Amino acid sequence: MEELWELNHLKNISLLGATGSIGTQTLDVIRTHPDKFRLVALSVGKNIELARKIISEFNPELVSVQSKEDYDQLKLELGAATKISYGEDGLVEVAVYEKSDILVNAVLGSVGLFPTLQAIKAHKVIAIANKETLVTAGHLVMEEAKRQQVLLLPVDSEHSAIFQCLQGEHDKDIERLIITASGGSFRDKKREELVGVTVKDALSHPNWSMGAKITIDSATMMNKGLEVIEAHWLFNLPFEKIDVLQHRESIIHSMVEFQDGSVKAQLGTPDMRVPIQYGLSYPNRITLTSSERLDLAKIGMLHFEPMDLDRFYALKLSYEAGKIGGTMPTVLNAANEVAVGAFLNERISFLQIDQLVEKALEKHNVIKHPDLDTIRSVDLETREYINSLL
Amino acid sequence: MEELWELNHLKNISLLGATGSIGTQTLDVIRTHPDKFRLVALSVGKNIELARKIISEFNPELVSVQSKEDYDQLKLELGAATKISYGEDGLVEVAVYEKSDILVNAVLGSVGLFPTLQAIKAHKVIAIANKETLVTAGHLVMEEAKRQQVLLLPVDSEHSAIFQCLQGEHDKDIERLIITASGGSFRDKKREELVGVTVKDALSHPNWSMGAKITIDSATMMNKGLEVIEAHWLFNLPFEKIDVLQHRESIIHSMVEFQDGSVKAQLGTPDMRVPIQYGLSYPNRITLTSSERLDLAKIGMLHFEPMDLDRFYALKLSYEAGKIGGTMPTVLNAANEVAVGAFLNERISFLQIDQLVEKALEKHNVIKHPDLDTIRSVDLETREYINSLL
Repeated sequence: MEELWELNHLKNISLLGATGSIGTQTLDVIRTHPDKFRLVALSVGKNIELARKIISEFNPELVSVQSKEDYDQLKLELGAATKISYGEDGLVEVAVYEKSDILVNAVLGSVGLFPTLQAIKAHKVIAIANKETLVTAGHLVMEEAKRQQVLLLPVDSEHSAIFQCLQGEHDKDIERLIITASGGSFRDKKREELVGVTVKDALSHPNWSMGAKITIDSATMMNKGLEVIEAHWLFNLPFEKIDVLQHRESIIHSMVEFQDGSVKAQLGTPDMRVPIQYGLSYPNRITLTSSERLDLAKIGMLHFEPMDLDRFYALKLSYEAGKIGGTMPTVLNAANEVAVGAFLNERISFLQIDQLVEKALEKHNVIKHPDLDTIRSVDLETREYINSLL
Repeated sequence: MEELWELNHLKNISLLGATGSIGTQTLDVIRTHPDKFRLVALSVGKNIELARKIISEFNPELVSVQSKEDYDQLKLELGAATKISYGEDGLVEVAVYEKSDILVNAVLGSVGLFPTLQAIKAHKVIAIANKETLVTAGHLVMEEAKRQQVLLLPVDSEHSAIFQCLQGEHDKDIERLIITASGGSFRDKKREELVGVTVKDALSHPNWSMGAKITIDSATMMNKGLEVIEAHWLFNLPFEKIDVLQHRESIIHSMVEFQDGSVKAQLGTPDMRVPIQYGLSYPNRITLTSSERLDLAKIGMLHFEPMDLDRFYALKLSYEAGKIGGTMPTVLNAANEVAVGAFLNERISFLQIDQLVEKALEKHNVIKHPDLDTIRSVDLETREYINSLL
């Protein structure tokens, strides 16, 4: 409280997943504070049109794309000042880019794992928005971060809320984390009413503007399940100390209960730039004038409901997979990724997502303390298994 | 977060106002943690019966009473192991008692001021529940605390909430404090409906069990006004950065908004032992198993309303007095104390409390930067003036 901390040098940022939802909002934060942040390296997937705009605006030194074709094309277009790379190697190059201070990992899916581990080994601060990294390999990531004494900063609004509430507190005093959940697109429907829901219905999230995969995961509550597993690793707490509370307004982003009964919460209008910027500016805060200020008098009411784990079956599956540990969360995540993809392509119904995930979990014989290769092969096997059921 | 902080020695506590509402709850905290806290000195007012019980249970080394008669009586009763004292000198003796580490100032009214200043000079940590100390002499108290490098810990639930939210944060990042107000006994009445309300009506506070004076102050909203002035001094912020928000459930005890739009709140079931214990255990937290845990799913809804400063006129007067500063808050407080006393004795109506306070403020010519003697004489003059109007 007393000490005045100054952000006295430009932070150089590497960004994995620059064209996604978190990626573009990260760019917005960087754009607002050119005196504080500089984008030095980035990766994109297939959206080369947007990549061109980003490159022209931010002049990064290194750009990685997904395919060899796009690599060849961009190589022709861009001058010698911009290094181009591609594929998995490209992701790693961006993650460990020498001049960068912070890696923002906003890539989707389990491709985010290996670059994160490499960035930790290269002593980068990690601002992590890629759920799969912690869900599938939390034990490896946290071990390595501890070994290298690297800071892992959560960028998810829920984990950022918890992280903010824990500032100035002691781990031993934590009694419980309370992760809030909006309930997603179908929160007011009973499970039996979900039979005929469409992709379009599922993509209408009431509070947050997010990518398609995460919006579906919000509707199934798998998103919250993955967050519970992430929280388990990030905050080093058993699953018994991590609760989920339904809170439809998404104003309280999450809470921490301490051993004296005191509860701390972090609140705000739903704006992902707040947790993203906190991750970039930490341990400082900097102004974010464009963010709409919270006006509770105007909002009037906040609602809270217990989570029904039979209604939100994916959350139940997540707790179970998390408690078993080992390769189980990898199966949970991989099965869900393929199933959500199949739902988005209208190959399966909404309720089949949970069912496919449960099948994959039931079939899998857990491997304890898996290494990276094991995680990768279980991930692959699970995807093949789910694809075989489609 | 990382470091494990151990409370490795017994903290010796001096308690001013042991038989009041905050006093008895402080004793409850001390009683629950005999391995952490020891009551070494205390003061009581006129409740000698309760004082005897407290002395017999806690065996303090020093006891101060209000009157010479009670002093003489207790001197006969108690053994040589307990030192007895009385009057204003007695309060100071308790406040600066050599063996004590922390002074809990839970005395009512402006008699709490001088002992607090003396305790600061004696380098005691101050856990402050006595509003009048900061309201009337915030500039002297904070100056002295800074000079002596003494920690001032708030015990009020609102200020403790803010203090908890500020842990691990930087003062420069604070954009706004949001102090919550239950609205008191008459929150659902319009101002014109307050004409005939009785003392009994006014004493039925919806959420908190507190003393009579503070319960009336909650009904007029003067309590919140005094808290705003306290917050101004405790957190060194202009009145423009301190808002009051009506929140009928008293679950969110107060909030801090930061410059990035992020808001932190401290929540809990209404239990004064939580902030009292936090003041005693700070910078640590210790368990408080007897406190009912917050269950937001059970509570279901939290409500927020803007504060109407014409409806809660005492709050408007408080902001005005606070902004003018100098001796104005002393007048506000002294006039209110006498007026509330007159209301409790059924000599004036409820709405006359505000009116008398306003009269006193209007009549007073402010003195800037008053010293202790000036504060005392303005306090006395104001009391005489209000008494003359009764």
